[in-house]
Parts: sequence; C-alpha cells; structure tokens
Amino acid sequence: MKQFLGVDIGGTNVKFGVVDADGNIVKKKKYPTIEVSEGGDFCGNFSKLLAKRLKKFPDIASVGIGIPGTISADGKSTLDLPNVPALANQALVKVLEKDFPTLPIVMDNDANAAALGELEFGLEALPKTYIFITLGTGVGGGCVINGKIFKGGDGNGFEVGHVMSSTGKTIEQNIGKAGIIAMAKKYIAEGQIPTTLSGEFDAKAVANAAHEGDKLALQVYHDMGKYVGELIVTLVRVLDIKTILIGGGVSETFDYLKLNMYSVINEFLPEYYTKDLNIQLATLGNNAGILGAASLGISGIELK
Amino acid sequence: MKQFLGVDIGGTNVKFGVVDADGNIVKKKKYPTIEVSEGGDFCGNFSKLLAKRLKKFPDIASVGIGIPGTISADGKSTLDLPNVPALANQALVKVLEKDFPTLPIVMDNDANAAALGELEFGLEALPKTYIFITLGTGVGGGCVINGKIFKGGDGNGFEVGHVMSSTGKTIEQNIGKAGIIAMAKKYIAEGQIPTTLSGEFDAKAVANAAHEGDKLALQVYHDMGKYVGELIVTLVRVLDIKTILIGGGVSETFDYLKLNMYSVINEFLPEYYTKDLNIQLATLGNNAGILGAASLGISGIELK
Repeated sequence: MKQFLGVDIGGTNVKFGVVDADGNIVKKKKYPTIEVSEGGDFCGNFSKLLAKRLKKFPDIASVGIGIPGTISADGKSTLDLPNVPALANQALVKVLEKDFPTLPIVMDNDANAAALGELEFGLEALPKTYIFITLGTGVGGGCVINGKIFKGGDGNGFEVGHVMSSTGKTIEQNIGKAGIIAMAKKYIAEGQIPTTLSGEFDAKAVANAAHEGDKLALQVYHDMGKYVGELIVTLVRVLDIKTILIGGGVSETFDYLKLNMYSVINEFLPEYYTKDLNIQLATLGNNAGILGAASLGISGIELK
Repeated sequence: MKQFLGVDIGGTNVKFGVVDADGNIVKKKKYPTIEVSEGGDFCGNFSKLLAKRLKKFPDIASVGIGIPGTISADGKSTLDLPNVPALANQALVKVLEKDFPTLPIVMDNDANAAALGELEFGLEALPKTYIFITLGTGVGGGCVINGKIFKGGDGNGFEVGHVMSSTGKTIEQNIGKAGIIAMAKKYIAEGQIPTTLSGEFDAKAVANAAHEGDKLALQVYHDMGKYVGELIVTLVRVLDIKTILIGGGVSETFDYLKLNMYSVINEFLPEYYTKDLNIQLATLGNNAGILGAASLGISGIELK
C-alpha cells in the first residue's frame, strides 16, 4: 500500500512523518533543526535523512515539505526563513530532485500545507474551494481553490495575518498572542471590568480565565471576534469563497469569538455571501504539520 | 484585418464599440439601456442589436461584454444587477451563443474588463500579473494573474471596494464620492482648517479646491491616501502582486494621495514587496469600458 512522507520543518525540530492513504501517521521521527543545519549544509543533511526514511519505507510514493517562511515563485527554493536561517535562500527542492529524480517532491509554506491537509485528510467533508485561517501565536492561513493551493501572483499570497484591520494595525498585531495579552492589560489598566487576571500572564491564562467566566477575558475574546469578522469580510470580498476553516489552537475559545464575529460579518456581507457562508473549525489539530506536508506530496503525484 | 466588438452595458446606455487590434475604436454606437430592456426581453433585444453590428462589420472576430454587477461561476449568466434590472439573472451568454454559435463571446464584470483592457490595449507595457483599482464614484477593480482575470472561488472575487479599513468601515464608505464629501464636511464642521468650501458641494468641487491649494481639500486627499495605502497593503499581502494600476478618474488628484499612501505602505510592507512595488496610473481613461470589454472577447478567441 502506498505511503506518503510529510516533513514539517520548524525552528526547533524537523519532523518526518510516514502517512498512509487514510491519514494515519504510521511512523514519526524528529531531528533538532540545529542538527539538520550542521555545517551550514541544510540541504545535504536533509537529503541524507530523507534517503534513510526512503530506505526504511520503500512504499513512500511522494514527499511533501512544509517550511515556516516564503518560497520562490517556482516552488523550488526557499526565500526568507527567519526561524531556520540555515535553510534561507536554498534550492532545497532542486537538490532533492537531483538526489531522488523519480520521486515527486513538493514544498510550500507550512500554512498552505496545513490548509491543503484539511482537504486530503480532514475529518469533515469539504468543498474543493475554501479559506483556512490559523489563529495562534500569529495569524496565518492558506487558500484552496478547486483543490489547489492559491499562491497569488508571485507564490507567497495569503499572508492574512498582515491584512489591515479597524485598529489601523494588522490583524496579527491585534490578536496574535502578544495582541491578546496587550488587550487584556489595557482593560486591566482601565479598571472597568472585573477580572482575576493581574501582573504578568500569557495568552493561555487569558483563555483559562475565559473558561472560568472571567468577564475581562471574555471581553478580550469578544474584541477578537470583531477583528476576525473584519478579516473574514475582507477575504470573502477579495476571494469570493464561502467556506472558512479556523484552525491553530483556537478551537477551545472559538465560541467566545463567534457572536461578535458574525455581527461584523452580517453587517458588511450581503446575502450573496452569507446565504452560503460556512465557518467551521479545522480538524487536523496537532497533526496538521505532518499531514499537511504529506498532502503537498500527494498533489505532486497528480502533477507528475 | 480582424476587429473585435466591445460592449459596455451600463445603467444609462449600452455602448457597442468596434475595436481594431491596435486598440483604436473604429466605430461607437450607443443605445439607451431602457430601450434595450424593452418588453423585459433584454437578451432578445441585445441579440438583435448584435446581429446588426455583425452584419455591418463582418470582420468582428469576438464579442466581449462588460456588465455592472455579478455573474455566475461559469460566466454565462448575470446574477445581481441593480442598475440594469431587466438583465439581472439572465443567461445572456447562453442566449447569444445559441444565436451566434461560431463567435467567441465572453462576459465579465466591467471592472474586470477594464483591468484586462489595460494589458491588451494600455499605453504602458505591463507585466502579466497586476492589480487594477478604480477610484471613482465607488471603489472597484480587477486582478490579472498570468494574463487571466482572477475570479476567486465562485467567480465574483476582487470586490475591493468592500475591503475593511482602519475606520471600521469599508474603503468605499471612506473614499467613494459620498465618503469624500462626508470627510470634507466633517473637517468644515470642526473649523480647524481654512477652506473655500462651504454649504453643499460635490466631490468634483473638493478636487477643484485641492487644485487651487485649498488646505482642507488637500487634507481630505491626504486621508484618502491613508485608506488607499491600507487597501494596497491588504491586497498585496493576500495576492502577492507588486504591480498596481490606479484608474477611475482619480488621475488628476492622485498626486495629493501619494505621500500618505506610500507612508502606510512603507510602514506595513517589508522589503520583499516594496523592492519591486510599482504603483502607476491606468491609461485607458474614458475608453476603458469598451476597450476592456473588447479585451474580454479577445481572451475568448484564445480559449476557443
């Protein structure tokens, strides 16, 4: 039975996952990114690790690689990669295609990979055209049109965390982890809303407080809902897509955002959009990195 | 020599233009929209008018039609068309393809048509991937990727006038004609900036005052620059496109926007985008409707 390799390259670890056609991760193996970067030869080291995986799992039919940064328009090279400096501006796919000439190898931004993974392996049936937004430490996402990742003009479209919002800042500045903490601190300083939060705390503490009914924490999520609503309005208007997946660790707090999010959406989107609008949570969770990367490789089989 | 028919359907007139390969409008003819709508049979009446044009100009190789509204995902039918009610929800292209089976006929939104017209007939050489934004009574535009109109998921993407801005309203609410007048009146009411504007006036009067150095009118355009800058930041981030054409009657006032527009752009876009960013004025002016529509038809020849 065919298997697919998904490689999730992050700032801390490079994770290799062997995935079967049903989206089961048969085998996971991770290497510290700093080891793979050794001697400044990320591509060479990566190629050796890949050779090992392929030897051990001869049924691997494709390789997909998710990277935390921008790629060249042809998809063969990395560009800016602040968290993995040794891999910045490297022709990784070209090197690998030379070493493994018969193997389909596809690389993309990790958020695009996670987006495509929802179509290939997600638990819910999806139309072939949808928007995927991750709300986490940062705000990112991917867009799939007719089953293919929409890459924009020069290959790095859908940087949705940097869309402008009603605060005159970007959506990520508003509701990334730092933004959530700043919102909470602003309300604490104003002293108008009762809360158990005080001193220094992280975004997780705001979420926990909200779970316990903390009024100030809930107000923060209420505001977040407004900004997410604005982002959805903008994206739906630019892309004319009505299915929206929300991922990235927000699943437990998403209910707190909803009311205000829909209020903005219903104010600004006419019925042409709202009658078919479907906003739901993404389903791959912690496996999104590997499964998303594997789905890239599978799309490469179809292209070859 | 081949000719191309461009039809610009508006709320007041339906304009037929016979265009040569160099973008010269050989012959223009217009009919009141209300006449073409007679008996509620817009499609039938249109087909008869088209037959006349084709008889008189037998070298017409394609027909392009620009409409002021939304179209179906397959491009064959109109959807919502507030300014031309008799043409709303009509399978215009299907009717015409039945009447003229060998002729390539392509219909699209008029802003998309105008966008594509700049590539086919514009006075400046353009890359095949660019964003076109019209600033006029409303705010609209089109997006061309690799020489093709980008239509989004369901065919009606790039409704950029309805992108959210830092005021918590849409860009069109801010800087459409009504928005310009509202901004000027707000500053007049505040009474802090000297101006010759008073009482009732239209957007043209604000432009004229700005030409004469009126400080309040110039402040209005300065603010407009900020909102246009925000729109460009958002679109560039979502679409990864670095060539931007500005059209729609703003050409004479564009200089007043520039400073603030670039200030927002340089604050929010990193070098990856700004190093290649090219923002220029569109060139087709008053002929954009007919030439844009004609360019749709030409794209249809390539498809057949």
